Amino acid sequence: MELIEKANEEAIRRMLGAEPVLIDVVPAGEIVPDLQDKMILHAGPPLEWDRMCGPMQGAIAGITVFEGWASDLEQAVDMASSGDIAFDANHHHDAVGPMTGMTTVSQPVMVVENKIIGNRAYCAINEGLGKVMRFGGNDEEVLNRLAWIRDVLGPAMGKALKDMGGIELKPLIARGLSMGDEMHQRNVACSGLVLRAIASAMARTSDDTTALSESLAFISANDQFHLNITMAMGKAIMDPVRNIEGSSIVTAMSRNGTDFGIRVSGTGDEWFTAPVEMPEGLYFAGYSEADANPDMGDSTIVETIGLGGFAMGASPAVAGFVGAGAASEAANYTYRMGEICAAENPEWTIPSLDYLGVPTGIDIRLVVDSGIAPTINTGIAHREPGIGQVGAGVVRAPMACFEQAVRRLAANLGLS
Amino acid sequence: MELIEKANEEAIRRMLGAEPVLIDVVPAGEIVPDLQDKMILHAGPPLEWDRMCGPMQGAIAGITVFEGWASDLEQAVDMASSGDIAFDANHHHDAVGPMTGMTTVSQPVMVVENKIIGNRAYCAINEGLGKVMRFGGNDEEVLNRLAWIRDVLGPAMGKALKDMGGIELKPLIARGLSMGDEMHQRNVACSGLVLRAIASAMARTSDDTTALSESLAFISANDQFHLNITMAMGKAIMDPVRNIEGSSIVTAMSRNGTDFGIRVSGTGDEWFTAPVEMPEGLYFAGYSEADANPDMGDSTIVETIGLGGFAMGASPAVAGFVGAGAASEAANYTYRMGEICAAENPEWTIPSLDYLGVPTGIDIRLVVDSGIAPTINTGIAHREPGIGQVGAGVVRAPMACFEQAVRRLAANLGLS
Repeated sequence: MELIEKANEEAIRRMLGAEPVLIDVVPAGEIVPDLQDKMILHAGPPLEWDRMCGPMQGAIAGITVFEGWASDLEQAVDMASSGDIAFDANHHHDAVGPMTGMTTVSQPVMVVENKIIGNRAYCAINEGLGKVMRFGGNDEEVLNRLAWIRDVLGPAMGKALKDMGGIELKPLIARGLSMGDEMHQRNVACSGLVLRAIASAMARTSDDTTALSESLAFISANDQFHLNITMAMGKAIMDPVRNIEGSSIVTAMSRNGTDFGIRVSGTGDEWFTAPVEMPEGLYFAGYSEADANPDMGDSTIVETIGLGGFAMGASPAVAGFVGAGAASEAANYTYRMGEICAAENPEWTIPSLDYLGVPTGIDIRLVVDSGIAPTINTGIAHREPGIGQVGAGVVRAPMACFEQAVRRLAANLGLS
Repeated sequence: MELIEKANEEAIRRMLGAEPVLIDVVPAGEIVPDLQDKMILHAGPPLEWDRMCGPMQGAIAGITVFEGWASDLEQAVDMASSGDIAFDANHHHDAVGPMTGMTTVSQPVMVVENKIIGNRAYCAINEGLGKVMRFGGNDEEVLNRLAWIRDVLGPAMGKALKDMGGIELKPLIARGLSMGDEMHQRNVACSGLVLRAIASAMARTSDDTTALSESLAFISANDQFHLNITMAMGKAIMDPVRNIEGSSIVTAMSRNGTDFGIRVSGTGDEWFTAPVEMPEGLYFAGYSEADANPDMGDSTIVETIGLGGFAMGASPAVAGFVGAGAASEAANYTYRMGEICAAENPEWTIPSLDYLGVPTGIDIRLVVDSGIAPTINTGIAHREPGIGQVGAGVVRAPMACFEQAVRRLAANLGLS
């Protein structure tokens, strides 16, 4: 249908024309729209306390203590469950967050501006691996790290980024794809490239070499440091693609540990949700599927822009990490995702596939017609609060989300 | 023949058992054995002034001025051509250097210690791309950069390395192979990994944030920064493999822009030389084959340990850069080099080839029997002094070197 084709062309034009630049790090309360005190933004579509999974409730209790709204986790749970804390989805506030995706007023967020449009998107700084809040961790170690990020790392990054005029992300991602990253479960190359971009400016704007040394050590030791930058970039790229009449391109995929939700350009800001699936993957020593929480986080914005599971062909090393089969088969994931996308990205290419562009612009019609669900590379959280990451794997977006969206788009266009 | 097989097993055991660690940066005059004032170590087998190519003579003139032995380039050429300067090969002093490979007393050298044996190897710090001394550059810009490396960067790296206890290189290389480096013409991943390893320690041991910022910027901006580390590592790995009676494994390949030379374990420190070949490759804008100098540098130590052209399969992006054909064909170079090597390295693997180990231990018998010459990824220097790099390409080691070595080994074993 010509209206849909034209609309999708416009959607792809906006995606490929985006110019995302990491420009600053700012306390969320100063910059995230409509974020208030005693308010917690979380990953995925909106949901109420009683429907939240273990790690999401654990993270909410932890961040409530971190913000000083409660003196301990017990009081925090009382407040959260009795309506004293407001909840909303990150996606409703130009923000994204990995796994539980906690965004609250005092946390520093990285600011990615899409220079071609001027819109901005926000994401907190990645905490590293292991027992961290995004996987439901909430003890003193977790809160102390968040306090250090708030007091030391965030301000240092903000000063450096302002001094250097920001970091252009499109060429950085292009380079990372030639270095084995798919930018969801493997970000080691992009994390190194960001360090290369920012280290000198951090030194230039520092007056405390001890704090500087700690900050450089933290960035250097975190192979997933760039994940949250990729995410803020993804949100900055996709937000201007929303609300193109007739477009069947997915503008967001996200999950809260209970529901998986998608948004589609031609159906505005409505969420189409279905029960989230369990990842299939590999578990860290001592853990198994019995410990796993269902899939969670706004990080699927990475797949929405053609990276993560869609760029598996760039990252044979990740295939083993997420239990997706032999390294040599990684390319097949990328080829398959190409069948449900409207375009290839000529600026983000995969050298080993003779510079094939990553599949870009998930078309809900192609998903439903082909029966091929988007493949997502993901971390796996323990299902109980306070424990953290227990593995990594691959999960499919539920087909029911796409079927609902196709029906709604058809209805909007008077086709049903 | 059983003696040769046993000897080669021992050679491979020493290669794979090496534990190279980057431990320090020290002025060459304080640490390189038998390096004296008014003495210049150069790349490749030894040769006299009259037989040196243009960029080699240009670099020698430049470093003579840099060391203060002459007041200008003209006087330097007079001194060099009249016997006032002593020349020797880096390889005769536990050292290596890329392209022209200048090593002199005041230049800082990186020190790689092979912890399993205790031997050490040395290489100067990589100057970056463009007009640099290793490609024959010798003007004020080139000498000023060398002075800054001597006065600022070298001491800063030395302090940091001592403070942090060094950087283990084997796991770093393993990681770099999963990030698209082959470590000869592509070192961007390893350069980033070294920055990640050292940045925090450099901040911790710095009392001058301006100098620190400059040093971090220099390392961050140099995609080939790690090349010289790979080279010192290669020399530290291969030196203990020398002088195993009967072994047909190559312990060094090197070229001085005039001759290509190899050394073989079972024939001691004798060089087997032949006229060096011209690289086939791609030229930077404004340059062509007519400008190219024949192949040059000690950097072929990288191929001697299974990296560079031997690890092309890890680095599809480099195939285009050196003009070696389609990215998807990069693996064929690695498979072919496997035919002339005695082993695969189980710790240095290529994810996209389902974790095939890089081909390790060039056996001169296999080279001669198969007619397959080692493939080398290389930079291309302008043939006139003072200009610099003009391209990158692939070159073959001359078969005549291997034929001579086979005859000598056979003679040594009483077989001819």
